[in-house]
Formats: sequence, structure tokens, C-alpha cells
Amino acid sequence: MQGEIITIGNELTSGRALDLNAWYVAEKLASHGVPVTRITTVGDDPIRVSRAIKDAMGESDFVVITGGLGSTDDDITNQIVADALQRPLLLHREKLEQIRKHVEANGLRMSPSFEKMAWMPKDSQVFNPEEEMCGFSLVEGKVALYFLPGVPEQMRHLMDTYVLPEILSRYASQPVTRQRILKVYGLSEPEISEHLKNLSKTHPDLILGFYPHYPENHVSVSMNGKDVQTVAEEVERLEKEIRAALGQYIFGSDDDTLAGVAGKLLKGKGLTLSVAESCTGGLVGNLVTNVAGSSSYFMGGIVTYSNQAKIDMLQVDPQILADHGAVSEPTVRRMAEGVRAAFKSDLGLAVTGIAGPEGGSREKPVGTAHIGLASASGTFSQKYFFRGKRKQIKMNSAMMALDWARRYLCGYPFIPGL
Amino acid sequence: MQGEIITIGNELTSGRALDLNAWYVAEKLASHGVPVTRITTVGDDPIRVSRAIKDAMGESDFVVITGGLGSTDDDITNQIVADALQRPLLLHREKLEQIRKHVEANGLRMSPSFEKMAWMPKDSQVFNPEEEMCGFSLVEGKVALYFLPGVPEQMRHLMDTYVLPEILSRYASQPVTRQRILKVYGLSEPEISEHLKNLSKTHPDLILGFYPHYPENHVSVSMNGKDVQTVAEEVERLEKEIRAALGQYIFGSDDDTLAGVAGKLLKGKGLTLSVAESCTGGLVGNLVTNVAGSSSYFMGGIVTYSNQAKIDMLQVDPQILADHGAVSEPTVRRMAEGVRAAFKSDLGLAVTGIAGPEGGSREKPVGTAHIGLASASGTFSQKYFFRGKRKQIKMNSAMMALDWARRYLCGYPFIPGL
Repeated sequence: MQGEIITIGNELTSGRALDLNAWYVAEKLASHGVPVTRITTVGDDPIRVSRAIKDAMGESDFVVITGGLGSTDDDITNQIVADALQRPLLLHREKLEQIRKHVEANGLRMSPSFEKMAWMPKDSQVFNPEEEMCGFSLVEGKVALYFLPGVPEQMRHLMDTYVLPEILSRYASQPVTRQRILKVYGLSEPEISEHLKNLSKTHPDLILGFYPHYPENHVSVSMNGKDVQTVAEEVERLEKEIRAALGQYIFGSDDDTLAGVAGKLLKGKGLTLSVAESCTGGLVGNLVTNVAGSSSYFMGGIVTYSNQAKIDMLQVDPQILADHGAVSEPTVRRMAEGVRAAFKSDLGLAVTGIAGPEGGSREKPVGTAHIGLASASGTFSQKYFFRGKRKQIKMNSAMMALDWARRYLCGYPFIPGL
Repeated sequence: MQGEIITIGNELTSGRALDLNAWYVAEKLASHGVPVTRITTVGDDPIRVSRAIKDAMGESDFVVITGGLGSTDDDITNQIVADALQRPLLLHREKLEQIRKHVEANGLRMSPSFEKMAWMPKDSQVFNPEEEMCGFSLVEGKVALYFLPGVPEQMRHLMDTYVLPEILSRYASQPVTRQRILKVYGLSEPEISEHLKNLSKTHPDLILGFYPHYPENHVSVSMNGKDVQTVAEEVERLEKEIRAALGQYIFGSDDDTLAGVAGKLLKGKGLTLSVAESCTGGLVGNLVTNVAGSSSYFMGGIVTYSNQAKIDMLQVDPQILADHGAVSEPTVRRMAEGVRAAFKSDLGLAVTGIAGPEGGSREKPVGTAHIGLASASGTFSQKYFFRGKRKQIKMNSAMMALDWARRYLCGYPFIPGL
């Protein structure tokens, strides 16, 4: 049993939009043990869309197709499918009524473009006649085709609610799949390869994968098989070996984020955090607060983008700024201590650096960053150098700061700096 | 003349990674007038990779292929291509030397996995023998194949430096392409459709597209043709009509970001900005500082995630918090005024809201947000409601705050709230 994904849209083939839909559908299917063998993206071109659907039908048990179901002129999937499969378009009255309600609730007037959305190829099964968004399935020969809108929120809702359950029920004889993603920060892919070169791959179906997720690296262990226990044991055994080899560089697994892991540690110990940011401009706080429930341990932050703000709001000594500059170890230490005092938090985390493209010097090139951490047991600091463009340097600096919080809370040493 | 893109990797077909490479290559080609007709993604499977390459060669003038050139076991593209095109693998000595240098500089030892990267199909042209990263091209029949690594930074470097110039020089007789993206904030796609329904599409080759980029919406105008002047005039004419119809909801075009546009306005007027954030947790500051050169107008920010911090650091009156709560119009006004005073900036921008999933009530549901702006001409505030999950509510709140700065600086009215 295998499936394919087809995503339709000129915005995808021209690179104006990232294909978040293929990514979402592939992840949903793979994580439920359903393999996707191919993803094909074509523009809003009837001939190419038609051919892509026919190609996929010749090879797969099902095809999930996203895009082209909306009200604008380039939304032509229904017509293309009707032509390709030689089925007339029929009006779905219940759906039409829902669309009309939605259009009127938005203060718009019903028009042929909206009505078009309710015309579907003969024998289509509409997922959700009681909602205004469009999606339907049809079976041609032995192949099931699932059509979903291109708008990500609608696509995700229909995929999760209707398509995935139907695919899983159709193909219930799936073999067992187990996958584990181990997330690494602070080691490069070659370093990881080197650490993992002696893994004992005892089972031929055990699959090891390496995936860069800048600035993280992910290592995946997965296996398909018929026997639940064998699959689970093999994956678990290899995970243990990898954990032993990479140690504290693994910050989490599967859906974990570094900010989430640090947050859980803070919560577990009943400690609070505040952050002082210069070059990251608020990114550390943003990552921390992406975690639901972070208000129980995150007190807040101060973004000081000027020397004066560092003096006024973080009590950095003007003499230190004059002697060492804003991007220096003495400054980052005072920033960490200053923000800890200002928010009366248990930990004060600070970042200062040069994100570029301007502002670098021979002594302090673009990419130089200092991390500082103030705590009841003293203040720590370290200098780092990050390659990349402005946003990458910001992201790496912010991630290193979060990794400091994690390592401090676990009693691990910090990643060595310069 | 047309090309295709093939991206290779189990991490893509299983949805573990977003396909940033296809997106990048497609955008580079499209923006230089080279159409991409299909993007195909397959896993690390020799049969499927081989078939995808052969399929593409049958239809296109060139194919850009990314992935599978690295040192790990699943990097098998060179071998697959050698088999598919029946060309032996030959050792590229200069490349091997560069790889060796790089490996040793990273404190690793040379091994067969690294050496593998220097073996390429016969008659390959190596892009960059003097660098350690791998990429090569070969011509089979009339079709040019370009092989690039899957690591995004390396892929982008080689694409920009070698592949794109070669493709453009091979196919110099390209017709003229002109494209304009107009970026909209504050109108939904149906609202935009409704505003644009009477556009006069005077030329059959003029293409209008709508692309949701949450929480923005993008409208693209593009045209291919033989005559530079006609193409330019048609695109410009339609752009003017769209601008007239959508007015102040268009915040920029092409590579503009809302934070960049607001920053340019601040710089132009010699004004400075500071931000007070609650639910956005630093995201507004992060977006502002993603813009290179933002230090000339951005003073900094204060993230107050607790009531006490709002009182201590932004001088919000405790009585106001007690009477109206942290998510209220009186609070957001004091936050804006407080941060403006603390940083002595010309503008103080504030956001407070409920990002969820917890913390909502019947009176103030998850998604409620207040924006405030303090300036020399007074303090303004407004209540909004944003749908979505935690990160979407944060992003929409942050974008609305930035739109307030833009609209204030342009003398436009703010987007109406609740």
C-alpha cells in the first residue's frame, strides 16, 4: 500500500510560496505508517495537472491532491478532474447553501465564482457538506483520490478530520511503523556521522536518517515490520546507542523544541527566567513564549538595541561599554545580571552579538556573539562565532542561549566557545 | 524552454523536513524568466530516483536535482545516476583533496564515506573543484542535468554561483518576463477577490494570482512576452489598477516586509521606535530587527509577561490592571506610553493579548488582542480578535502592531477593530 501527493499551483512551481501542504500531508501519512512514494507539484495548467493525476493513479493506491478548489479564476481542479475522468460536473446543493451563508456572513455577494466551488465531478463524496470549505473524494478503478483546498488551515482541517481516518480505515492491514527523531544542537552533520559510525545495525529493516534543521540536526531511527514487539525493541535499542554516542548534545526527541525542553526543566525545578537581548532583538523571548504555558516560568525580557538602553535598563556600567564594547564578555555578564535583578527571576539569560551585514570589524567579525547566564550560583559567559546571514546568526545565537539554560538546569557543561 | 526540479530524500517524502530547496530553485528560475513545469520529490530509493530523472529528461530541457550527494549511507545520487545513464564513476582528485582538507580542518579523519563524495559519473563537470562542497553537471543527449547537495546553504551557494548563470547562458533566447508581487495585510482572500473583480484584463497573457501568506495575502501580476515595452507597460497598468482598488491595505511589493517598510518610514522621518510586548513575547522586536540597519531607529523593547513586570518596568498603574485586566485598552495604552518613556523613543508600540490555548474567558476569548501606540500627537489603541493557534495569534498580533506603525507614519487610518 502506498500513496502519492500532488500539489497544484503556479505559486509553487514559481517558488512564490513554500509547499507547506505537501509537507503536512506527507508527515501525517508517514507518522501513521503510510508511505508516500512521490510528491509532484505542477502549476495551474490543465494538461499538466491531468497528466500528474493519471501518472499517480497508475502507480499508487491513493492520491492526495491539494489546491485549485477556491473561487478565483486559476482554481480549476474540479473541471480538470471532470475532464480527465470523463465525469460530468454536478451541483452539490447543500454545499452551495453553506458557501452562500459564508459569503453573506462576510458581507460579500454570491457570484458565479463562489458557485463554481459547489460543482463537483459525478459520484464525488463531499467530506463536509455542513461547512463552507471544499473537499471531496472519488474512487476511480481501485484508486482513491482525495481533493483538498490549497489554503493551509482548511487543508489541514479536512486532512485530519476526514482524509487521514479514511485512508487508515481503507488500508488497515498496514505493517507496524515506529519512528523516533532525536534532536541535536551544537554538533555538525559530519561530527554526528563520525560519532555514529560504529552503530550496530543489527536489523536490515532499521533505517537511520540525518536531517539538517538549521541550526539543529535531527537523527531519525525508523523501522517498518509486521511484529510490534520486534519493531519497538529494535528502534529502542538503536536509540539507546545513539543517545550514548551523542550524549548531552541531544536536547530532545520527536515534537520537542529546545525552548520547550528548557521550559519543562524550569517548571520542574520551580525556577523563573528572564532574558536580555541585543542582537537577537526579541527572538529568544519569542521562542520561549511559543511554548504554551510559558507564563508560569517566563517573567519577561528587555531588548536593548543601544548602549544607552543597556546602561539605563540593565545597569551595564558605561565604563565597561567604553572599555570592552557592547559585544564583549563583561557586557553580556552585566546584561544577564541586570535582567535577573530587574525581573527578580532565578535565571537571567543574555545575548549580545553582531548579526550583520554591517557592524563587523577585524577583531569582532559579523557572527561574533556572547552568551551570559546569571544565577544564584554565579554568572557564566562565553564567546561564540556563528556563520551565516543575519537571520541565521540571530537564530543560532538565540538557540545557543536556550541551550545554556537547558545545560545549566541539567548540570551539563556548556558547549565550548572560542 | 522549460525545466524541472527533482528533490531527493526520505526526510521530504515522510514530511520530516520542509522542501526549502525546491522552493529556492523554483523562485530563482522563475524570477529570471525560466519556467519550471514540475517539481518531483522522491525518497532515497534508487529505482524511484532513477525513474524520476528519466521522466524529467523526456520532457524538459534541463533538470535541477538536489540531495543525496553527502557522506552518509543514504547519499546515493552519484551511483544512481551512473547506473541510470550507464556511465562509470570516476574519482575527481582535486575535489578529493579539498574534501580531505575540509575534513581535517574539522578535526575528523578521512574515511571511505567522505571519499565517496569525490566519485562522479564520467564526463561530469564539477562546479567548484576548489571548494569542499559537491555539485556537478552533465549533458545527456540534449538535456542538461545539474546535481546539487541537499544542505540548503551549500545548495544555494552553488545554485546562485554556477547553475543559474549557466542555465541563463544556455537559454538566452528567453522571452521577456515581468512579475510584480503586491503584499496585502488586513484583507482576506475573498475580500481581495471582491475588490478586484472589475479589473480590466486587457491582455490575454497577463496573469493575476492570489497567494495566501498567513497573515499576509499576496497578489501577483505577471506576463511573459517577446516585447520588453509591452510586457512592462501591461504589468504596470494592472498594478496601478490593483493599487487603486486595495489602497492602504497594500503595504509593499516584491521583497518588502511589513517591518522593513515601517523601518524605512521611521528612518525617512528620523524617528525612533520602542516596543512593549506581552502575548507576542518578543516577536515584534524580532521582526523589527530582522531588517538590516534597524539599529538606526529601533531603541529596544520590554517583554512583560507578568502583571508585576507591567507595573515595575512600564509604570502601568496597578489599579488599571485590577480594574480592567492585563488584556485591556487602558493597559495597552499605559504599556505604549511606558515603553516610549523608558526608551525615550518617538513612538512606543504595545501589544497585549491572549495567545492561548489557556487563559481565555467568555468575555476575553483566546485571540483577543489590543494594540497601542504612543506618540507626540497622543496615544491610540484598539481591540482586535485573531483566529488560529498560539503561534498564528502571536504572528497576527505582531503584524497588526507593525501595520499600526506603518499607517501612523503614512497618516492612514488604522485597520478597524472590534
